[in-house]
Amino acid sequence: MKVGILGYGNLGRGVEYAVEKNDDMELVGVFTRRDPSQVSVRSGVQAYHVDALETMKDAIDVLILCGGSATDLPEMTPKYAADFNVIDSFDTHARIPEHFSNVDAAAKKAGKIGLISCGWDPGMFSLSRLYAMSVLPGGKDYTFWGKGVSQGHSDAIRRIEGVKDARQYTVPVPSALDAVRSGSNPELTTRQKHTRECFVVAEDGADKAAIEKAIVTMPNYFADYDTTVTFISEEEMKRDHAGLPHGGSVIYTGATGEADGHKHVIEYSLKLDSNPEFTGSVLAAYARAVFRMNQAGETGARTVFDVAPAMLSPISGEEIRAHYL
Amino acid sequence: MKVGILGYGNLGRGVEYAVEKNDDMELVGVFTRRDPSQVSVRSGVQAYHVDALETMKDAIDVLILCGGSATDLPEMTPKYAADFNVIDSFDTHARIPEHFSNVDAAAKKAGKIGLISCGWDPGMFSLSRLYAMSVLPGGKDYTFWGKGVSQGHSDAIRRIEGVKDARQYTVPVPSALDAVRSGSNPELTTRQKHTRECFVVAEDGADKAAIEKAIVTMPNYFADYDTTVTFISEEEMKRDHAGLPHGGSVIYTGATGEADGHKHVIEYSLKLDSNPEFTGSVLAAYARAVFRMNQAGETGARTVFDVAPAMLSPISGEEIRAHYL
Repeated sequence: MKVGILGYGNLGRGVEYAVEKNDDMELVGVFTRRDPSQVSVRSGVQAYHVDALETMKDAIDVLILCGGSATDLPEMTPKYAADFNVIDSFDTHARIPEHFSNVDAAAKKAGKIGLISCGWDPGMFSLSRLYAMSVLPGGKDYTFWGKGVSQGHSDAIRRIEGVKDARQYTVPVPSALDAVRSGSNPELTTRQKHTRECFVVAEDGADKAAIEKAIVTMPNYFADYDTTVTFISEEEMKRDHAGLPHGGSVIYTGATGEADGHKHVIEYSLKLDSNPEFTGSVLAAYARAVFRMNQAGETGARTVFDVAPAMLSPISGEEIRAHYL
Repeated sequence: MKVGILGYGNLGRGVEYAVEKNDDMELVGVFTRRDPSQVSVRSGVQAYHVDALETMKDAIDVLILCGGSATDLPEMTPKYAADFNVIDSFDTHARIPEHFSNVDAAAKKAGKIGLISCGWDPGMFSLSRLYAMSVLPGGKDYTFWGKGVSQGHSDAIRRIEGVKDARQYTVPVPSALDAVRSGSNPELTTRQKHTRECFVVAEDGADKAAIEKAIVTMPNYFADYDTTVTFISEEEMKRDHAGLPHGGSVIYTGATGEADGHKHVIEYSLKLDSNPEFTGSVLAAYARAVFRMNQAGETGARTVFDVAPAMLSPISGEEIRAHYL
């Protein structure tokens, strides 16, 4: 299958690596809103200006959209679903129904598939929640994120006056994790679940106390958390905080039997050295399913909930059953 | 949807509890090869002799088969797939292809769905393996079982002369689990992955040394493991080993990026107070999918790999997307 990547940031690069790992996929090109002559594609595949997609409708089986959720994807996904099978990682939870409906209309009209909100959360974590609550109705689910870099929180710090660079780690509170894993179904506040660790490079002569105060009191982002701020040098930032690790756990507890006397704990957890490369890998696997669903005559919007697991694998149904069931 | 349970042992009772938890399901009856007047069904639902199924083809949407894999299911599942949508927990891995093909032929001919090998392993663990290897091709998967009671191993001990009762726990080796979780991809022998703890009630005057030797040297079951044997009283057995807990972990490690420099660890784990009740809960959720697939006109054999997760939930697609994605 022929794959195109639209958007060549961290996620686009992650998809590029993933496509190389899948022998049944070929990367046709990387599409960018920048001047393509200024974009150096690691694998040597050609970079095109996004407008070139107009003339490449038959050259691409699935277009993987690697834009941001805030402003890019709400426009991009319905737009390109009118000409291509598409997949995105839209993660603004509150706007998913609206986005789904926009993509559904465009994709149905075009006879294409548009799979939205793919990755690990939303994505693999959502699957874990759905499987668990379907098997054990009436249970309780907990999601912990980290330890990992939150790009949104890092950006929020960078916008503070006097901040040159920043990296924010979301860290689950070990005692909260233990309590949930024990099956005791604790009620946990935001503050009890995660702490936030911030590493900040200040501009020369900046007021560090003011920066720290601006961070820890920032509403939505930090005010509801126990937040630590550590000032470091540019060299330390580069040396110790260059990666984009992430991960987390979905833990679901439910009960069965006489008077719900038997407890069960289901946990799905990820420990990722590279958030964008793992997300890119999930997108690539689901791109395969998108192509297959469309080949089978399906059209419209889809999410990970609608995809039978066998559709993700290049291995035949017979082999999967024989070796992996 | 109307559900029938065929076989009323531990698993059948687990399914009965699960059906009660699902408001869209109604238990029509329990079917048994025993004299139904001797079978007391906990929920008060009627017990029928298995022959009564002949006359109840329209009264049951899905028949959940709770027989054993060794001799019951290879015959039972194709037989009943000729008249009912069926689901089983067939777990003899080597015979899955043959079983699938027998059920497929019968179910296709009858216009029914037969979903085989459902539960947690095969079942939820199989899904975890498939998802992980589809997302991160070329990685390595490890499955650890326990701590939990292995019925097969307990039965094997009970067949030894002088043994009155026995309970065998499969226990994963903590250092092996740690090594796998670290992402170091160790090569592990059978002995390095699990130990086996046996609790045995001996007959009065039995030769305990002989029993112990018979256990630890038993080929396939114990010879390849570090096995401990503890003799206990009947009272201790009843007091401390009445439950059927189980669980385990599927751990998958893969890599992405430049020279595979970024490692990722995916883990799915279960900690279950009651193995048969959890397995019964998985069967009930998949019974819903079986019914829906057949309602949509699908026929033939299926496994968990073929079922889109949304099919398992009583919640509408719209609600799932809005609240659980």
